[in-house]
Amino acid sequence: MSVLVVGTTALDSIKTPKSENPRLLGGSASHAAVAASFFAPTKLVGVVGGDFPAKYVKLYEKHGICLAGLERVKDGQTFHWSGEYEVNMNNRRTLNTVLGVIDGWSPKLPGDYESTPYVLLANISPAVQHTVLDQLSKAKFVIADTMDLWMNIALPDLLRLLKRVDCLVLNDSEARQLVSEDNVPAALAKIHKLGPRYVIIKKGEHGSLLSGPKGLFVAPAYPLKKVVDPTGAGDSFVGGLIGFLAAQKGGSVDSHLRRAIVHGAVVASFCCEGFGLARTTKATKAEIAGRVKELEKLVKF
Amino acid sequence: MSVLVVGTTALDSIKTPKSENPRLLGGSASHAAVAASFFAPTKLVGVVGGDFPAKYVKLYEKHGICLAGLERVKDGQTFHWSGEYEVNMNNRRTLNTVLGVIDGWSPKLPGDYESTPYVLLANISPAVQHTVLDQLSKAKFVIADTMDLWMNIALPDLLRLLKRVDCLVLNDSEARQLVSEDNVPAALAKIHKLGPRYVIIKKGEHGSLLSGPKGLFVAPAYPLKKVVDPTGAGDSFVGGLIGFLAAQKGGSVDSHLRRAIVHGAVVASFCCEGFGLARTTKATKAEIAGRVKELEKLVKF
Repeated sequence: MSVLVVGTTALDSIKTPKSENPRLLGGSASHAAVAASFFAPTKLVGVVGGDFPAKYVKLYEKHGICLAGLERVKDGQTFHWSGEYEVNMNNRRTLNTVLGVIDGWSPKLPGDYESTPYVLLANISPAVQHTVLDQLSKAKFVIADTMDLWMNIALPDLLRLLKRVDCLVLNDSEARQLVSEDNVPAALAKIHKLGPRYVIIKKGEHGSLLSGPKGLFVAPAYPLKKVVDPTGAGDSFVGGLIGFLAAQKGGSVDSHLRRAIVHGAVVASFCCEGFGLARTTKATKAEIAGRVKELEKLVKF
Repeated sequence: MSVLVVGTTALDSIKTPKSENPRLLGGSASHAAVAASFFAPTKLVGVVGGDFPAKYVKLYEKHGICLAGLERVKDGQTFHWSGEYEVNMNNRRTLNTVLGVIDGWSPKLPGDYESTPYVLLANISPAVQHTVLDQLSKAKFVIADTMDLWMNIALPDLLRLLKRVDCLVLNDSEARQLVSEDNVPAALAKIHKLGPRYVIIKKGEHGSLLSGPKGLFVAPAYPLKKVVDPTGAGDSFVGGLIGFLAAQKGGSVDSHLRRAIVHGAVVASFCCEGFGLARTTKATKAEIAGRVKELEKLVKF
């Protein structure tokens, strides 16, 4: 079955202590859609300006991503994020953000998108996430990703969204912030009360936690000896996750979710090994399967 | 087989936002020895002053811990640590430290201790850890725990120690500091070059990592919805770990190490659920086995 991904389609300029990488393909929807495309047919809903390079459209196309939902505003500017990482690649700070065509964007879905069964509301404003949900009629499983920014400036929209989605994905500090609870397992219980049946906490190099009707799943991260650029790793994680779910034949979402998370973690590991989408786009299905097997062995006791 | 534990035997005064808990039984050797005692006969090597409460000696005895190696200095003062935790129980600061009888202590092992097969050099100065190793003749597996303090004030002693032990245990920030390497998997490779065949990185709520001749093991922590006092959790972890190893009949250390780590993590989880040793000492073998089974389910995919 197919996946619909809505989120940001952006240009990222990423500075590290060792290099500058201007105007890479980035954005939550770009990373998530490419990640999902390894497993299932993927439709992208986003918006770009006239400055969006043709080579990035080709990259989407190389991954078989349907671009009927990619709006192009000829005289507009693509959303542009500039950021800088510190030596340890964990701390990053935003240098500049130009919203461009994403400012006030309200996506209109192509007609045949409304029946997509697997929907990823990748990180973007809850208002846009609502607009997409409003146009869907047959969604089987909806995942929403979010971030602290929306808790700070659009909390009512976000809280309303949580009642409309099956699964919320956020990182541990965001989970603590959302329900004012320092203990993560305790925070999970409080987040369920806000709506989502499933909650997934991303913890970067420490893996992730899934909480659902059948309890907790403690998922590993794939250990990397070298992290080149973690930008988009969280988006790749959730994209790989929903792509894997959509590709399963038979069985409930619940029965596939643990393996879906592990596949997401593996795609995220490739994302971290190159700037932007450079490494992800070169990953093969065999490489992904290889790292999943490694993870199986890494956690066995 | 039996376990020898050397480390600090202390009085801990622990302040949290909600309570003050003066002069609890604490110290690396106390936590580790009680943890080990759930699995194997345990000998404690430590030193206390005349102010050491009889009830704490009884607690050791309740756990069947051999106290022939517990030196008592009648006119001395027991090592006393005072600390304060912040609301989230993750950040702690030391309020006061009185070394007392531990200052300049050089342990002398009772005659029959020298042939103990499993040895835990719990957190204490590398000088004391060396002194104990010097008196052992038949150690089969030696684990050393350490902390940033010794890297800062006794690095040459610590580096010399690393060439004498089978396994080093430390937390992730200490691992980064020891080899000036921000990436933990990369740091592991560098630590092996300093001596130990096995390295275990403690990551608190995020679990732990084992690196050894057969590669990595990513171990979970037992998820707790309420942490009362994490003091001694790391000591309980390594104590439970070596106690479990000592209790195995047949098979190599390597073949038991993963399950040993999981048992250590479970004992550590009990430690966090009460002040000092209050909860650990009430744990039962059935409770420990129950949480190990839960962890098996929590990581399965």
